[in-house]
Amino acid sequence: MAERGLLIVLSGPSGVGKGTVREAIFKDPETKFEYSISMTTRKPREGEKEGVDYYFRNREQFEVAIEEGRMLEYAEYVGNYYGTPLDYVEEKLASGVDIFLEIEIKGAMQVKKRMPEGIFIFLTPPDLAELKNRLIGRGTEPLEVINERMETARAEIEMMASYDYAVVNDVVSEAVRKIKGIVETEHLKTERVLHRYQNMLEGF
Amino acid sequence: MAERGLLIVLSGPSGVGKGTVREAIFKDPETKFEYSISMTTRKPREGEKEGVDYYFRNREQFEVAIEEGRMLEYAEYVGNYYGTPLDYVEEKLASGVDIFLEIEIKGAMQVKKRMPEGIFIFLTPPDLAELKNRLIGRGTEPLEVINERMETARAEIEMMASYDYAVVNDVVSEAVRKIKGIVETEHLKTERVLHRYQNMLEGF
Repeated sequence: MAERGLLIVLSGPSGVGKGTVREAIFKDPETKFEYSISMTTRKPREGEKEGVDYYFRNREQFEVAIEEGRMLEYAEYVGNYYGTPLDYVEEKLASGVDIFLEIEIKGAMQVKKRMPEGIFIFLTPPDLAELKNRLIGRGTEPLEVINERMETARAEIEMMASYDYAVVNDVVSEAVRKIKGIVETEHLKTERVLHRYQNMLEGF
Repeated sequence: MAERGLLIVLSGPSGVGKGTVREAIFKDPETKFEYSISMTTRKPREGEKEGVDYYFRNREQFEVAIEEGRMLEYAEYVGNYYGTPLDYVEEKLASGVDIFLEIEIKGAMQVKKRMPEGIFIFLTPPDLAELKNRLIGRGTEPLEVINERMETARAEIEMMASYDYAVVNDVVSEAVRKIKGIVETEHLKTERVLHRYQNMLEGF
């Protein structure tokens, strides 16, 4: 039987650059873990592809999935649902594959309740002024949405304590390197490898 | 006030190559942690230097240090004392420096009792046949010493569960990379960085 994979959850304040970091992680052909694509009811942004960036669904379809217990987590955020289909994640973990989620804070906290054994990584801005610039710099949202997001970000940073690790997103390649280091290190925990050595000792 | 440094303890069965890995770690100028030199009553091997590889002391000097409570840990192993002077470690940790110990298993377990917040890393052989070859291959010990060490090694591997991490010493450079990754990852734990962000929020 394969050793169970790790559930890796990357989250953090809106606008911190989670998507950019996730893209950089999966551009690297040496990345050994797999990305769990989220389901959402929000409209695709330019360049986003169905089944690559998200599974794009309408509200009715999404709510049926919730009712049937087929979502590991979901949240309504700025008027849209975002969530992670459960079956896919369960199958991958059971077959020994590490699964990587990039999700909003509310969703991450739901995952933590259902799968507390997951590795919870909080991506943080280098400082909060920088976060504000990023939120404004995207330039696609009205001011009240930006202000609302700023307040949300403040509350979210206070939630860092619920995570296992905090990674600063100052230089993307450094954030990527650190996240990969976290995953590799988690695999070195004795609780995860002890059974291999116990098998080895039988033949000594 | 500086954030307290991490105490990193590398240990593992005799003959697994702890010294080689430690040397490789500290040959790298980018290594940010400092090596805590052990004190021992054993005779220097060829090429070993006082104050670099060990502090070489006689039994009387060593026993005085034990009586005066100046040893973080010590063990008698194959007829000699090995141990870590306490003051040096305490000063470095308090000033924010990560301190690296490379010690035998018995000593590591004493450190764990006194400083359970340390990071305990167990260096393991790729397999136990390989360990036997290494113990014999050193060629400096009579057969009964080798056999005694083999039994010790077997008992020691069963102690892996007392450690936080297990690193296989198959390729030295890979073991070094993993150990550095563990230290970097430990510094990313939210419990260690949360206060920085709490300070940041005050000025938001």
